[in-house]
Amino acid sequence: MKKTTLFIVAAVLGVLALPASALAEETVISEVAFILNSFSFLISGVLVMWMAAGFAMLEAGMVRSKNVSTICLKNISLYSLAGILYYLIGYNLMYSGVDGGFFGSLGFWGPDDAAALAGDYSAEYASGSDWFFQMVFVATAASVVSGTVAERIRLWPFLLFVVVLTGIIYPIQGAWSWGGGWLDEMGFSDYAGSTIVHSVGGWAALTGAIILGARKGKYGAGGRVNPIPGSSMPLATLGTFILWLGWFGFNGGSVLALGSADAVIEMSVVYLNTNLAAAGGIIAAMIALQVIYKKVDLSMALNGALAGLVSITAGPDTPTPGGAVLIGAVGGVLVVLAVPLFDKLKIDDVVGALSVHLVCGIWGTLAVPITNGDASFFVQLLGVVAVGAFVSLLSAGVWLAMKYTIGIRVSPEEEHSGSDTAELGLEAYPEFGQGSQKLR
Amino acid sequence: MKKTTLFIVAAVLGVLALPASALAEETVISEVAFILNSFSFLISGVLVMWMAAGFAMLEAGMVRSKNVSTICLKNISLYSLAGILYYLIGYNLMYSGVDGGFFGSLGFWGPDDAAALAGDYSAEYASGSDWFFQMVFVATAASVVSGTVAERIRLWPFLLFVVVLTGIIYPIQGAWSWGGGWLDEMGFSDYAGSTIVHSVGGWAALTGAIILGARKGKYGAGGRVNPIPGSSMPLATLGTFILWLGWFGFNGGSVLALGSADAVIEMSVVYLNTNLAAAGGIIAAMIALQVIYKKVDLSMALNGALAGLVSITAGPDTPTPGGAVLIGAVGGVLVVLAVPLFDKLKIDDVVGALSVHLVCGIWGTLAVPITNGDASFFVQLLGVVAVGAFVSLLSAGVWLAMKYTIGIRVSPEEEHSGSDTAELGLEAYPEFGQGSQKLR
Amino acid sequence: MKKTTLFIVAAVLGVLALPASALAEETVISEVAFILNSFSFLISGVLVMWMAAGFAMLEAGMVRSKNVSTICLKNISLYSLAGILYYLIGYNLMYSGVDGGFFGSLGFWGPDDAAALAGDYSAEYASGSDWFFQMVFVATAASVVSGTVAERIRLWPFLLFVVVLTGIIYPIQGAWSWGGGWLDEMGFSDYAGSTIVHSVGGWAALTGAIILGARKGKYGAGGRVNPIPGSSMPLATLGTFILWLGWFGFNGGSVLALGSADAVIEMSVVYLNTNLAAAGGIIAAMIALQVIYKKVDLSMALNGALAGLVSITAGPDTPTPGGAVLIGAVGGVLVVLAVPLFDKLKIDDVVGALSVHLVCGIWGTLAVPITNGDASFFVQLLGVVAVGAFVSLLSAGVWLAMKYTIGIRVSPEEEHSGSDTAELGLEAYPEFGQGSQKLR
Repeated sequence: MKKTTLFIVAAVLGVLALPASALAEETVISEVAFILNSFSFLISGVLVMWMAAGFAMLEAGMVRSKNVSTICLKNISLYSLAGILYYLIGYNLMYSGVDGGFFGSLGFWGPDDAAALAGDYSAEYASGSDWFFQMVFVATAASVVSGTVAERIRLWPFLLFVVVLTGIIYPIQGAWSWGGGWLDEMGFSDYAGSTIVHSVGGWAALTGAIILGARKGKYGAGGRVNPIPGSSMPLATLGTFILWLGWFGFNGGSVLALGSADAVIEMSVVYLNTNLAAAGGIIAAMIALQVIYKKVDLSMALNGALAGLVSITAGPDTPTPGGAVLIGAVGGVLVVLAVPLFDKLKIDDVVGALSVHLVCGIWGTLAVPITNGDASFFVQLLGVVAVGAFVSLLSAGVWLAMKYTIGIRVSPEEEHSGSDTAELGLEAYPEFGQGSQKLR
Repeated sequence: MKKTTLFIVAAVLGVLALPASALAEETVISEVAFILNSFSFLISGVLVMWMAAGFAMLEAGMVRSKNVSTICLKNISLYSLAGILYYLIGYNLMYSGVDGGFFGSLGFWGPDDAAALAGDYSAEYASGSDWFFQMVFVATAASVVSGTVAERIRLWPFLLFVVVLTGIIYPIQGAWSWGGGWLDEMGFSDYAGSTIVHSVGGWAALTGAIILGARKGKYGAGGRVNPIPGSSMPLATLGTFILWLGWFGFNGGSVLALGSADAVIEMSVVYLNTNLAAAGGIIAAMIALQVIYKKVDLSMALNGALAGLVSITAGPDTPTPGGAVLIGAVGGVLVVLAVPLFDKLKIDDVVGALSVHLVCGIWGTLAVPITNGDASFFVQLLGVVAVGAFVSLLSAGVWLAMKYTIGIRVSPEEEHSGSDTAELGLEAYPEFGQGSQKLR
Repeated sequence: MKKTTLFIVAAVLGVLALPASALAEETVISEVAFILNSFSFLISGVLVMWMAAGFAMLEAGMVRSKNVSTICLKNISLYSLAGILYYLIGYNLMYSGVDGGFFGSLGFWGPDDAAALAGDYSAEYASGSDWFFQMVFVATAASVVSGTVAERIRLWPFLLFVVVLTGIIYPIQGAWSWGGGWLDEMGFSDYAGSTIVHSVGGWAALTGAIILGARKGKYGAGGRVNPIPGSSMPLATLGTFILWLGWFGFNGGSVLALGSADAVIEMSVVYLNTNLAAAGGIIAAMIALQVIYKKVDLSMALNGALAGLVSITAGPDTPTPGGAVLIGAVGGVLVVLAVPLFDKLKIDDVVGALSVHLVCGIWGTLAVPITNGDASFFVQLLGVVAVGAFVSLLSAGVWLAMKYTIGIRVSPEEEHSGSDTAELGLEAYPEFGQGSQKLR
């Protein structure tokens, strides 16, 4: 065989064997990546779904026993409505054809995997897995609201607000950034949603709390703030643990991939930073509480952990472990300072959700440029303000429209006796607590 | 190089390079698929295991505080017995050598992965992962029973029934369908077990409730039904959330594969349909409750969510998202109607499990042909009736045999004071509730 | 083409095509394995993190209502501290450069995945996923301590002990075995940590309980033991279910791989053996309780399940299913016998953690050679004794140093009124239980 022949053979190998092998290789890789990406969405989505239970338990522990059943029902039904609305309108409004603009298109969502079923894996994940993962995020935003406005809002008006929030408000502002709209084009960076999810819930809750007014007896004469202790600290603790657990899916799933070593390395960093930020949040809050009040209030400490989680959510991929602890710790201290501030403003936030999700949502978003060179402080601030203004305006509109038509607040008698008997016709703890005390 | 030579080179490439590459490729794919299939069984199985905790919390919230410890013990020990019995007898009776017949073979189960360890991945999954996944399903069927017969059945006779149910009754009827028996050959379609798991638990519970009789004081003179409220609504809510979460493993794992794009696409559809059916179930139940009773009873709403989940379980892969909402919604309404019906028949079902698992198990099974062209209504009905007759007959036999020998019901005094002190020698809440009330 | 030519072509194929293909193959496989190994660490780690919630709920249910908030705070903050300390000092002390010796090096831990990001997957997993998985194990060891010393230890001294335990004591003894130190070189075998995690927590708790002394009123004159019932059995049950669930990650993740069929087969065996050991533990404990006491105490039965879990943890990969049931069953009986024994010794263990984690941790470690031919009973015993001596000595030193400086025990008045009001300024159940009883 002459050199030429060898060359030709090599060329043939180059044309037939190697490309064929490489092609097969890439096909394999792309199908495996498709599977792993999709599976990550599903498992992470399950963890985020679990956060709905976390909010339910946290809030059930933080309200008085006469309102426990109602807050449980609100939490499980808002999660349900969020799913239905996101199918009916939300997903496409957020993701379909936004193209640098302000919102997507109208129309039911449906799975479409024809290409992948035909062997083309360029979509990179099953459409349904993506929908599922995005859907549980909407629900999280709505969960934030229920805690703040608890113990005095009526059931059905609250759920009507959830319909508007999850069907319209959340998807539109989400289209701006995650949907590829104008904020995204400006370079706004919010990894898993400190702003897009948490502060959105926070702004909606803030307007609701102001328009609803405080619970009877919360604020006395002369600026006096009366503590109204929650009915079950272990349930509040359980709720916090559940939220912490679910947050691994919330932030970790937001890598949006698992089909490469790079993706799983990033996911690992996100997991450990998420954990360390929560740890930093609770320990910092505990120290602050001990220093300021000489006692470590458990409900505040729990909020410290949640504060750490919200704070890291905008950028869990870039900090060092020590940086994550610090970002979370700042959040933990912010909560300890913000809770009495809201009380001074007579904004009655039953579970401290404004301090956790709104204040730390802002902090977390603005903190991104500290560790992420691709983010600009100005654009981050712009995103915070734009989303805040939009959500506040629309939310206030909805709250006010309902207030002056169907009404949003339970009657004073119902507030006194509790929403559970008034709206649900039952008691959360009929044999003890509020229930048994009235039987006597 | 002549054309012939080129041809020969190509042929050599065809013999050596390409097949070798393709062979390696398939080997890789099959090992990766083997891993993913097995891992899906394990993770899904863990989620279904978690449903045992869901049943425990749901039922602990729905019974009176004097019976809470007992129902907790029943739930955790029935899960344990189900595992042991499925190892001792159940698995092989259900899956080994059924061949179109009525049951498999007798014998302990043991893992066998010799082929896979030698590099032959044609089994497609690790034997232990399959056993684990199947085992948690048996436990689910048994969990259904404990809720219905709560507050009056004795501990050990209940556990003896669980032994027979999980060791014999469940595996035999399971052999008919999932084991490849006669129902399977007729084309019976029950994706994750609306009939095979949920209605099986339902029939066993129904016969138990009838043979046991109602709790003292539940039914008064003149057809009067006295409500006996559960002791803790947040625990019931937590239990429902846990069940909902676990159901992603229950239905999603029933794809029985994760090793291809097709499988993960199907799993994604199953996940979102499962979620939407539960959402449809609770929202429909809430609307029905508001319309009929003007109040939204939380325990009924929770059962609405579970009803949606049971309803979609027989066919979560074929409906559109909207179809899943509707299938679940019908389940939610069925529960609202069925609960008072069972009361009218004086069948005392403490947690509403008959309405959820039996009624909606039947509905879900019969609804499969609506969206799945491969299923026939007649065969579905045949499956429902055959399984119902078999399970009812055997269950009734076991309940009656125990009733007239060892006895199944606590004494009237024990029923009054509660099973916790009578059978366990402790109280669930010694410092409040039933406990503290007696101290006074 | 002559034979020579054919040979040369084949050789060329051998040099270019096949090796290229095989190389690409292995690269692919190694990246997929890298992803799967890392993902297994993350998902398993999440399950183990969830065990922190399990300990919190178990202990919240087992203490009196006046101490419930405090135990919740201790559990969530110890988990947080464990993470921070393991980052600051623990991980490197345990794993970095132990080389057959007694401990590693000092220094903050940080992720390092440069090689993998450059395409070299020989590390086999993302460094952060490994850290995350190891970190949650430290937390588990610390969780064991909180239950034993509950209801009388002060908050901050307890947390200071946690700092030393998770930063120094645990990592050093862990370096001996898992870190590749002297015990590992001798062949000590502790798959997921019956000794390295559970008995370490147990020894630390034992010294703490002795040095702290018993709760007031626990032990009366003439050897009388006064039962102090826990405040919420459903929470204790929930905690047990959570721990059981998390244990699948604890033992299953300890395969330390998911990137091959062998690994997932081993993981499947570990899952099912873990489940069956827990089942064996609770059923055996229930039978023992029925036989000995004629009543099946729920809290003891729950400890039976946990005993089974701890017992199988040292070697969940080698027993047959039946062997796993038996190993767990022995653990379940041991707990029933050990709890009154500790009481006889007047060692006051609030939740029975010594019987579960210390006694069964030892049993499980010594039981490994029964089914694992590679383990030697002598080396197992040596490991148990060496770890026990080291941890006891250092723990006792820390407890004593704190006792005679800052103090470790709440005042008698605080113990009477409860840690919740004394240290946290709130009540766990202000509307019922201890709270409402004082209002009256």
